[in-house]
Order: sequence, then C-alpha cells, then structure tokens
Amino acid sequence: MDARERLIESTRELLWERGYVGTSPKAIQARSGAGQGSMYHHFDGKPGLARAAIGRSAGEMRERADTAFAGPGPVSARVAAYLRRERDVLRGCPVGRLTQDPDVMADPELRAPVEETFAWLTGRLAALLEEGRAQGEFDAGLDAEATATALVAVLQGGYVLARAAGTAEPFGRAVDGALGLLSARTAAKESR
Amino acid sequence: MDARERLIESTRELLWERGYVGTSPKAIQARSGAGQGSMYHHFDGKPGLARAAIGRSAGEMRERADTAFAGPGPVSARVAAYLRRERDVLRGCPVGRLTQDPDVMADPELRAPVEETFAWLTGRLAALLEEGRAQGEFDAGLDAEATATALVAVLQGGYVLARAAGTAEPFGRAVDGALGLLSARTAAKESR
Repeated sequence: MDARERLIESTRELLWERGYVGTSPKAIQARSGAGQGSMYHHFDGKPGLARAAIGRSAGEMRERADTAFAGPGPVSARVAAYLRRERDVLRGCPVGRLTQDPDVMADPELRAPVEETFAWLTGRLAALLEEGRAQGEFDAGLDAEATATALVAVLQGGYVLARAAGTAEPFGRAVDGALGLLSARTAAKESR
Repeated sequence: MDARERLIESTRELLWERGYVGTSPKAIQARSGAGQGSMYHHFDGKPGLARAAIGRSAGEMRERADTAFAGPGPVSARVAAYLRRERDVLRGCPVGRLTQDPDVMADPELRAPVEETFAWLTGRLAALLEEGRAQGEFDAGLDAEATATALVAVLQGGYVLARAAGTAEPFGRAVDGALGLLSARTAAKESR
C-alpha cells in the first residue's frame, strides 16, 4: 500500500473507533506511518481525508447490500440474507456511527455521503419489498417504504443495543424480531 | 439552581451535543458558569460528572417509558403511544448516543447505566407484549422478547436515520413501518 492508501485506511479505522471529533491529524499520521508532509501532499488535512474515508465506507456498504439483494430466492430470503449477513457488530456501523459526530453532521460535505447512503439503502430495500408485494409474496397492505425504513432502523439500532450490552446478542435478537414480524405479512396472506 | 445542579445539567447537554470525548472540563465550567473549585468540590472531575449526568438521562428515559406503558387501552395502543411519544429526534437519544463514545464504553462505571437502561426497556416492553399475547391480542406465535428488541432497535436506528437525513421524517417512517408489521400479528389472528 502506498502512503495515500495507508492514510485513507488509517482514517477509516480511526473514524470507526474514535469518531471524527476524537481523531487527530497526529493520530492518523501515527497509525498510517505517513509523515505530515505526505499527508498534506495528498489531502487538505483531516476534512479531505475524512471525505475519502467516508466515501469508501459508504461504497462498501452499498456493495454488500447489492450483493445480498441480488441473491437467489424469494424476496423475504434476500432480505433475511442482508439482515443476517456477517457483521463486525460490536464495532458498530462505520457509516451510521458518523451521525453521532457533531462535526461530521455540521459539515455538508461530510454529511452528504452519510445521508445518501441511507437514502439509497432504504430506497433499494423498499423497491425489493415492493417487488415481493407485486408478486404476491407479501400481502397487499404492506407499506414497502415504511417497512424498508423500519428494517434499516433495526440494523442501526441493533448496533446501538449490542454496543450497550457489550455483546452482539441483541443485534441478532432484533433481526429475529424484525424478520418474525415481516413473516406475518406472508403468513397472513397464506391464511386467507 | 445551585452550582451542583447547573454542573450536572450542563454536562448532560454537552454529552448530548458533543459526546464524552468532545466535552472538556473547561467547556462544562463555561456552560454551567461554575468555577473549577466548585466543580472539583462537588465531583471528581469529568468522570464523576458524567456518571451523574448519564444516571439522570437514564432515569428520565425509564420514567417516560413507564408512563406510556402504564397508559390506558390495549397493549398495541400503549406500544404505539410509546413509539410515537414526542421526542427531540434530531438531537438523538441522550442514552443511545453514548454507545458511540469509545471512552464511555471503555469505562465500566459509565457503560453500566447505558447497558442497564436498554436491558430494562427491552424487558419491560417484552413483558407488555407477552401480556398482549396471553390476553389474545396478538397471535400465539409472537416472540415477545425478539419483538421487543426489534422495537427498541427501531427507535434507536430511527434516530440514526433522522440525523443522517437532517430531518425527523425517517424516524416517524420507521415507527410507522414497525407498527404496521406489528399490527399484522393482530390482523393475522383475527382472520382465522
């Protein structure tokens, strides 16, 4: 890895662990092994590095969602695969955790990729649920948009509960609860 | 308000706005108008103040949940009242946001009230859902524990999505989605 790459990856890790407020240019240099000159050669300091790091985390989050959503089987199986995919739960979501960073939220250029990622994810999941509804997999009363927002919230809240408990267990339980509720929208239809 | 009280309330606000890492003893003194001598007379510095502030936020969160859960009407109406109660959504949850604070999570005395609050809330909500199931309000297949965890996660994740979007709208949509899914556990039973 060249210095530029090491700088981006180190910033990503530090943002994930300590947040933007808790990450100093000095800490980024120490973690990456890049000097101050190299850092300011490649980036305009911490804000520019954070833009690159956040953009990369957001891109990975989209890619992983796309992979699960494009998988085989009925819509409910693809939604379950996405909710249950392997995650480093106790580290939290590298994108979602940024919403608790006052300096990220106050900077339009840093907030934009966070906002766009969740808007994209919710929209993509809503389209998938709508597809399931149109194909008769879910009952006609399912509100795809609201349900998609609730499912994305379950994941983000699941991270919060797992970190509070110091164990990944509540994350898995929240996902089980959400999928249990969603399955009733299929079961209800079948029982008619 | 005396100095001790002003110190606790100022710490609460700063923890909510800036997090633990982003809150300095100097900022607490400036916001509270209390001097350094007064701060160290009442507390052992930032950790002690944070313990008092977090304890108070956690206590308020429990009180509000208790009020909604003890309200009139069927279980589903009480759950809906709790999920829909007025909240300062864009400020985020004063307890949940602490899970993103590495220094809070690393300190057992600061993490304990965060962990206990979510365990209590999930347990209380699970007992309420179980009551609804026992009374035939929900269908027999409802997993009260997993559903309660999912609902608490929807609230915590709703804050994350609202902050990302810069508007409270996704919070309300996530709650609508969750209540829509929960209602199917009643509707499913009625259609039998």
